Amino acid sequence: MNATLFRSVVYIAALCGLYLSTAMLIPAMVDLYYGSDDWSVFTVSAALVGGLSLTAAMATRGPPPAFTKRMGFLLVNVLWAVFSVVGAIPLYFSNLDLTFAQALFESISGITTTGSTVISGLDTLSRGILMWRGLLAWLGGIGIVALGLFVLPFLRVGGVSFFKMESSDIGDKPFARIATFTRAFMAVYVAITFACIVSYDVAGMSHFDAIVHAFSTVATAGFGNHDTSFAHFDSLTILWISTFFMTLCSLPFSILIVLVVKGRLDALRDPQILVFLGYIFAFALAAGLYNHLQNGIALPVALTHSFFNFSSILSTTGFASEDYTLWGPFAVAAAFFATFMGGCSGSTAGGIKAYRFVILFNIIVSGLKRLIYPNAVYSVRYGNQIVDADTQRAVFLFFSAYIFIWAIGSMAMALAGYEFATATSSVITALSNVGPGIGPLIGPVGNFAMMQDPELLILSLAMLLGRLEVLTMLVLLVPIFWKS
Amino acid sequence: MNATLFRSVVYIAALCGLYLSTAMLIPAMVDLYYGSDDWSVFTVSAALVGGLSLTAAMATRGPPPAFTKRMGFLLVNVLWAVFSVVGAIPLYFSNLDLTFAQALFESISGITTTGSTVISGLDTLSRGILMWRGLLAWLGGIGIVALGLFVLPFLRVGGVSFFKMESSDIGDKPFARIATFTRAFMAVYVAITFACIVSYDVAGMSHFDAIVHAFSTVATAGFGNHDTSFAHFDSLTILWISTFFMTLCSLPFSILIVLVVKGRLDALRDPQILVFLGYIFAFALAAGLYNHLQNGIALPVALTHSFFNFSSILSTTGFASEDYTLWGPFAVAAAFFATFMGGCSGSTAGGIKAYRFVILFNIIVSGLKRLIYPNAVYSVRYGNQIVDADTQRAVFLFFSAYIFIWAIGSMAMALAGYEFATATSSVITALSNVGPGIGPLIGPVGNFAMMQDPELLILSLAMLLGRLEVLTMLVLLVPIFWKS
Repeated sequence: MNATLFRSVVYIAALCGLYLSTAMLIPAMVDLYYGSDDWSVFTVSAALVGGLSLTAAMATRGPPPAFTKRMGFLLVNVLWAVFSVVGAIPLYFSNLDLTFAQALFESISGITTTGSTVISGLDTLSRGILMWRGLLAWLGGIGIVALGLFVLPFLRVGGVSFFKMESSDIGDKPFARIATFTRAFMAVYVAITFACIVSYDVAGMSHFDAIVHAFSTVATAGFGNHDTSFAHFDSLTILWISTFFMTLCSLPFSILIVLVVKGRLDALRDPQILVFLGYIFAFALAAGLYNHLQNGIALPVALTHSFFNFSSILSTTGFASEDYTLWGPFAVAAAFFATFMGGCSGSTAGGIKAYRFVILFNIIVSGLKRLIYPNAVYSVRYGNQIVDADTQRAVFLFFSAYIFIWAIGSMAMALAGYEFATATSSVITALSNVGPGIGPLIGPVGNFAMMQDPELLILSLAMLLGRLEVLTMLVLLVPIFWKS
Repeated sequence: MNATLFRSVVYIAALCGLYLSTAMLIPAMVDLYYGSDDWSVFTVSAALVGGLSLTAAMATRGPPPAFTKRMGFLLVNVLWAVFSVVGAIPLYFSNLDLTFAQALFESISGITTTGSTVISGLDTLSRGILMWRGLLAWLGGIGIVALGLFVLPFLRVGGVSFFKMESSDIGDKPFARIATFTRAFMAVYVAITFACIVSYDVAGMSHFDAIVHAFSTVATAGFGNHDTSFAHFDSLTILWISTFFMTLCSLPFSILIVLVVKGRLDALRDPQILVFLGYIFAFALAAGLYNHLQNGIALPVALTHSFFNFSSILSTTGFASEDYTLWGPFAVAAAFFATFMGGCSGSTAGGIKAYRFVILFNIIVSGLKRLIYPNAVYSVRYGNQIVDADTQRAVFLFFSAYIFIWAIGSMAMALAGYEFATATSSVITALSNVGPGIGPLIGPVGNFAMMQDPELLILSLAMLLGRLEVLTMLVLLVPIFWKS
């Protein structure tokens, strides 16, 4: 690691800290408006972080070094680390009485759009804190889409590079393209957020609830303002609105942009969209019918809840309308395995993701054909495209690393004393950035308030690993990464 | 599928049925000797199966067709199906009062060397039945090593072909090699079995227990003669003897043969052996220390039990010396994840297997290096050999198919009404041919007697899938397999 590289990484991190400190003024204003004393916490935090960031930025200004992959990896990791710590500062200094590990967990849960919380008694929280949680999630959503669209394809992580051609539908020159694309993305993201706010508001949420829950919905995060999550609103209409927006924001934003900007409906013909909607439908229908048959719940109500809760898990949001783990053993197992799956590439959703399942399935089928006719050529396809060997390897690499991390993390959580369902589901819900697990403690009506600092740090690490598509963080463990 | 192919598959299956019917005379003699009426069940079954097989063999005699891969796949599947059904016949007709699905489960559990049982009250069973269970396991062990050494490398399933060079250490001409090798293998297998019988006997087992438990140990199966498994013997010496032989028989038999026939100690320098022994040691030490610290068990006793029980799981045997799931949450999670791992290639052990973990790990490391320096060449190595792209793909194919089958099977078991730990562990213990799961029902002191026929059939299928290295059975699902 040379000095120029170090300097410019600190410089960019400081700029981001500066932006995030400015964002703290929003909850400060909210608290002022609603007459909560917490406004001072946000103002002081903003001043502190802003001052520090400004100093660091001034001290490290200079010509940027040539952009290398190594710098790219380092930057992504440092930026997410900075976001995590800065996001935690006002939570730590607030009157919530959190340990720093708890504040860090809550912050990481926000910016990774996971939505797990260590806070019990959300309903009594100051509105500034609730707004800050919503904002962290909403900003995290932007960061993730940007990561998926611009950074990971360049770094060739986990087979995402396969999707870089999508953005070429917009323009030709690479940098002009990124600028156009960023504007288009921000416009679409903000527009969807507004639509969601208005829909929630019209359907009966308070203005404040509508705003914060829309932030959290569009980011597929899962933070809410009430301990009982969406059960609080007791409205099937609100559940369907949320189902729609959670699902929408798990689709590739590049495709949503092409759809909006160019009006090209054929952009929706991406195989991952079909597969993603397919497995939402399959899980939700199976769980709904199961709940209907097992517990005698009227079919329309059962289906509303199953579509809401399983869209919520599969879009990696994590809202809950009731304790679906009480529907019976199948609902528990389905929720557990749904937690691995995830949404589409270049969306705010986490998890293994639908396009990887498309590619994995096609690799398995072509592999089986090759076993029968070893000399025939069976190419692996994704829609009309041929998936090259590098992408296949990248998908496998991601999949196996994901499973290994889940296994090792689960054993660590078990060592910390958590029973089987809690240990295994806490790690996968963190890694996939979903939110709730299974079991009485961290299930859909539970939270992470009872966990100790070491376990919260394990799960925080898992959230970051999942959010950065695993391999982006794992490269830091390879010794050659650090050699000049 | 042409007629010649069909005819010769039936012919070979009939020959195997004939062999297995002859084997039924052994438990018949045991029952006669101990004065149990069950001798007639075995004799009638032998006559029935023998007669049918002989008729079928006579009717389908003829020149063999050219051996193709397709025939290979079909043959392996048909043979294992025939073994399963024939093995079940005397169990079904005995006075155990089993449904056919139960008898089939028990038989498949034997020949796949899984060792799960649907029978409660083993201690009161006729000795002929106990002997038949032991024999099925012992013969299954032979079948599996033969499959791993001769058939799968030819079929190129799951990266096993990578190990075909091992056998070239013995001779040069392929068929002469197979004959020499088969003789050498049988000699080693029988010799180890004898050594195990004598050791058990000297350590205090009855002659009959020593024989049946040695059959089950050497096959890494896990069938025993007592409901309390190895707790019955209450002897730390017996536990260490069993630990030794279970571990030994999870090593590649090709290497054991080279070791014995040529006296070449360097053959042990196979990376998978080191990794396999390494993870036995790691799991056993961690669980033993955990039991010692958590429950105050004296360290030597705690380590004896942890080495026995974790060797038992990791060698995919499934004996238990006590209910290790009561040691605490870490022991439960460790036992669950250990159930995925498995032994070495070309042994009687099942599971994902150590050599695949070696290759997977090296693929991940080289993949991470390539992310940093995309233009550098990082070959994936297994010891001194380079792992080619086909083998890498085969290993990934196996790994992902394994995980998918586990997930789908677990949801099916949950749908049948089993809670999370039972549903998820029943499928993986079947797929990895281990035996016990976790949870009160099918844990180390439980059994499968309370399960209904549909669930037993799901688990039977999982045992066969695991035993045939998954892909060998999955090819049957590909439509082109059935086209002429």
